[in-house]
Amino acid sequence: MDNIIAEINCRLNEIVDQYKDGKVKEAMKYSLLAPGKRLRPLMMIQVLRSYQIDYRPYIDIACAIEMIHTYSLIHDDLPGMDNDDLRRGRPTCHKQFDEATAILAGDALLNEAVNVILNVAVEADLKLDIIKALYQASGVNGMIYGQQQDLYFEQRNATLEELKDIHYYKTGQLISVSLVIGSLIANQNDIHIWRTIGFDLGLAFQIQDDVLDVIGDEKKLGKKIGSDAQNHKSTYVTLLGIEESQKYVDELFEKCYENLYSLQINHGLILDLFQKILKRVS
Amino acid sequence: MDNIIAEINCRLNEIVDQYKDGKVKEAMKYSLLAPGKRLRPLMMIQVLRSYQIDYRPYIDIACAIEMIHTYSLIHDDLPGMDNDDLRRGRPTCHKQFDEATAILAGDALLNEAVNVILNVAVEADLKLDIIKALYQASGVNGMIYGQQQDLYFEQRNATLEELKDIHYYKTGQLISVSLVIGSLIANQNDIHIWRTIGFDLGLAFQIQDDVLDVIGDEKKLGKKIGSDAQNHKSTYVTLLGIEESQKYVDELFEKCYENLYSLQINHGLILDLFQKILKRVS
Repeated sequence: MDNIIAEINCRLNEIVDQYKDGKVKEAMKYSLLAPGKRLRPLMMIQVLRSYQIDYRPYIDIACAIEMIHTYSLIHDDLPGMDNDDLRRGRPTCHKQFDEATAILAGDALLNEAVNVILNVAVEADLKLDIIKALYQASGVNGMIYGQQQDLYFEQRNATLEELKDIHYYKTGQLISVSLVIGSLIANQNDIHIWRTIGFDLGLAFQIQDDVLDVIGDEKKLGKKIGSDAQNHKSTYVTLLGIEESQKYVDELFEKCYENLYSLQINHGLILDLFQKILKRVS
Repeated sequence: MDNIIAEINCRLNEIVDQYKDGKVKEAMKYSLLAPGKRLRPLMMIQVLRSYQIDYRPYIDIACAIEMIHTYSLIHDDLPGMDNDDLRRGRPTCHKQFDEATAILAGDALLNEAVNVILNVAVEADLKLDIIKALYQASGVNGMIYGQQQDLYFEQRNATLEELKDIHYYKTGQLISVSLVIGSLIANQNDIHIWRTIGFDLGLAFQIQDDVLDVIGDEKKLGKKIGSDAQNHKSTYVTLLGIEESQKYVDELFEKCYENLYSLQINHGLILDLFQKILKRVS
């Protein structure tokens, strides 16, 4: 998958190069091309490949997903939000540039993602469906709601159900829609299965994050560990303990495998992706 | 036009009511329904009416334009940007709520505007053209570039050309695209004329703003006057003086009239709009 990551990075660079010069463009590039796993675009692309579809004509749609993901990171890191100084091992966008530039760079990525999709050569109705799926997932009934709830529960304890709800919106929506967009292009009958896999995967991913915040390696993570405990934040680890949390991650992956094997596709390509997530250290 | 403003406000309210409850939804509603002139949605609607087209099936597109305008106001007012406490006579969004909520409410409005357009019953290709026009105008090569340049020239003097450039992007793009979207729906042959009218109108509007910041009535404006002088900001007034600035506004309107009369439409509906802008005190 490393070749595909290189292709995604190359296209992200070319996309930003079209914009008018200035600090906002620099900041977009800085955050977008920071070393990252490109998990969400890879998910869309691996779904296409698992149906034997050439991903190249659709790579810009994968880039648009990464743009939305990056905008959310830039804004979440702002002093008025989570106030983080480090992201992906480098200063956060507002630390590297300034707050105004970071706000605008985030706005710009959210805004331009739709323009990137508009320029892809796919049939009009499919294009509208893709934009709708993506902007519903990232919107106020999706990812933004998740961030709102995450901030809300910073000041109070959350139950397991409330925590699951936060993750469903904050992480699950964008991960799920990455698979769903692949399925929209490749086989629309399978969308509901991909959606389920996406939300289970998103939850597993987030619980891993909670675990890594306790037992992770700061260097590999590219951010400080122990921040959840320091902030007295409810996490799967504080509510279930490390062992039970890891057991829950395994259960979620089991469910993902089961759903995956119900599909008539090349499973190996998706299993590679699962392994990438299961074994991640950052 | 007051009836149409009431209809726009009613639809804006209904649109936000669909979202999941929370502070972000409240903040969206607070800023979106603050007393405003609704100039941009009115522009789109008056263009449709000037071609004898019923605006009602398209009113949500006009609302989407207002949503993008409001998002830009919320983010521009943030402490990290212009740091304003007062907007439309009321506390700015981050003052009324908090910074995180204001950032998310702005993001949400920018995000949901596209979903609002996606739900309108118009032909797929036209829908794609409308989204493209709007998100190009609001994007990093449009309104966001204007805000970046505006911030840049807060710390240094701008020439008349540089000032014109800021206004072209910061104000002109969204005003112009409001007319262009009307023309996209009503008569695509006239788009270039509406675009020109829009940019001239946008510049006139902005110069008026500079003048009102010197001679305006704080109560009617709903914000403090004299802020440009206090911030040593280059404006048309500091560069040309009040009299020359007002003369320039008149010249721009003359050009708008000329372009307007070259169109085969009901001119009166657009002239009403011009009068609304020419005589504005806020």
